[in-house]
Amino acid sequence: MPEVNNFLAVVDLGGTKILSAILNHNAEIISIAKKSTNSTNKNETIFSRIIATIEEALEGKNLNSNQLDGIVIGVPGSLNPETGIVNLAPNLGLKKVNVIKTIENHFNKKVLIENDANLGTIGIYHFEGKQNCKNLIAIFVGTGVGAGIVVDGKLYRGKNFSAGEIGHIKIKENGYKCGCGNYGCLETEASRTAITRIINEEIDRGKESIITTLIENRNVIKSGILAQALKKKDKVTIKAVEHAAEELGLLTGNLINMFDFDCVFFAGGVMEAIGNFMLPIIKKKAKESALKSNIKNTKILLSHLKDDAALLGGFALFKNL
Amino acid sequence: MPEVNNFLAVVDLGGTKILSAILNHNAEIISIAKKSTNSTNKNETIFSRIIATIEEALEGKNLNSNQLDGIVIGVPGSLNPETGIVNLAPNLGLKKVNVIKTIENHFNKKVLIENDANLGTIGIYHFEGKQNCKNLIAIFVGTGVGAGIVVDGKLYRGKNFSAGEIGHIKIKENGYKCGCGNYGCLETEASRTAITRIINEEIDRGKESIITTLIENRNVIKSGILAQALKKKDKVTIKAVEHAAEELGLLTGNLINMFDFDCVFFAGGVMEAIGNFMLPIIKKKAKESALKSNIKNTKILLSHLKDDAALLGGFALFKNL
Repeated sequence: MPEVNNFLAVVDLGGTKILSAILNHNAEIISIAKKSTNSTNKNETIFSRIIATIEEALEGKNLNSNQLDGIVIGVPGSLNPETGIVNLAPNLGLKKVNVIKTIENHFNKKVLIENDANLGTIGIYHFEGKQNCKNLIAIFVGTGVGAGIVVDGKLYRGKNFSAGEIGHIKIKENGYKCGCGNYGCLETEASRTAITRIINEEIDRGKESIITTLIENRNVIKSGILAQALKKKDKVTIKAVEHAAEELGLLTGNLINMFDFDCVFFAGGVMEAIGNFMLPIIKKKAKESALKSNIKNTKILLSHLKDDAALLGGFALFKNL
Repeated sequence: MPEVNNFLAVVDLGGTKILSAILNHNAEIISIAKKSTNSTNKNETIFSRIIATIEEALEGKNLNSNQLDGIVIGVPGSLNPETGIVNLAPNLGLKKVNVIKTIENHFNKKVLIENDANLGTIGIYHFEGKQNCKNLIAIFVGTGVGAGIVVDGKLYRGKNFSAGEIGHIKIKENGYKCGCGNYGCLETEASRTAITRIINEEIDRGKESIITTLIENRNVIKSGILAQALKKKDKVTIKAVEHAAEELGLLTGNLINMFDFDCVFFAGGVMEAIGNFMLPIIKKKAKESALKSNIKNTKILLSHLKDDAALLGGFALFKNL
């Protein structure tokens, strides 16, 4: 595996924004550039925008791409890190596209791709969990719910490189329709999308909520708004968030029964904003559903790496830590 | 690790019977002896009965214990294979007992212990799954439901050596009480115990069932009786078994979403007897709940090793295959 002697670019390719960072050989993030994922310019592809953010991040420190040892890209979708092909990334509109080849051809540098939750998990493992957690799951709660799994200090990818799709565990027989086409997936009860739906259902039923005064369009409730509403003890928001936390707690207990993990980390936008409110509920519910013999030494905790998790994960992946 | 040059004794310690087998260096089971687990003689401990079955199995081939390289014991309970301590094996009445020490002291041979589902899983991996299934789960359906997990060709034990407790995944909010103390565990809906309860509920509601003519005490319905009733197209039995199979199928789909396994094996007494009836239902339900991208190459199949799974697993464990 190549070594990071000089600098490394890590790209966190999100549904709404592209974040490119330059890391030095000490895994320090020395420069960052962002762009929205979708362009108003029709001639711009997602690839040209990735390239532009990398170059912008380099320029921020007066570096050029020759000083890069390589590039790591985290992609929100199913992909094959060996061939470089992204099979499906719905939020990016990518289907069966070789991402490695395109970026490699431009920079003439080694490029690695990895699923975004997996990349974040590698970051959490190497920069947060390593000492105490040989076996862990990192659960990312945001627009959806995803996860990455580390077994014996190594990312566990599964046969289709698709392990960790916990957002699509079916938890309700007659549940809501999920983006995946199935009904009653965890994501329909425990994501930011689910919390938003539950809050709106309550408001539509006539319940009063501070949410209506905080934002104009209550169809999109960002995590920061949830934090504000919780701070003001908004009952509708509390109820919706408690529900999501309880479902995540039940899942956590079940995961501990099945996989007897050392640690369960929570991360992602929702957890960054309101994890302190959710974690005690998650822990309580997990304790209720897990076997005492399995949960007794399990650490259930919030990641502190925030957006850096995927960036540091890119460093660890490239360095083959 | 020690090698099997001569003979190995493997003990399958069940709640109702103790089965001891002698295997030669080719993993051939050359002799077997059985005893019921519980003795009418109060002076006999479970250890003296284990020792007696091993000696009986040896005598069956005119062997003596000096010709053994070692002994492997599969225990239905939570244990630490490193210290030899069985923390809890409710069906055997064992709690915090060092099983290795007692047996090792008697025979003066190397003794290993392992959870019974894990031992069966090692057997299934090495003698059935190895070629196509680097990552697999083996699900054992009997009086309860348990499982063993293999990751990258190696048994995955978890931090308390308690991974695979899928019988205690909570699947129903207001479910039946489980032996573990919780409510609504998978075991309360998908084990032989659950099938028995559902059949009895239906009969108590006035439904006719051939079960009442096949056995006197319908509180204990063995797997062979279920097979007979299914063969005679008994509606009450079909409904109860279908329910169990559907719950196992849903779980299978969820496991595939989470862990993207190469293979899911079904084994255990219920699967031996009526697995051919249950497997198509399990597969159908798994297909409904799993993501297409995850399930597309997953093999869902019945183990053919039956009782031999744990015995062969003992060989593989001792040989460190």
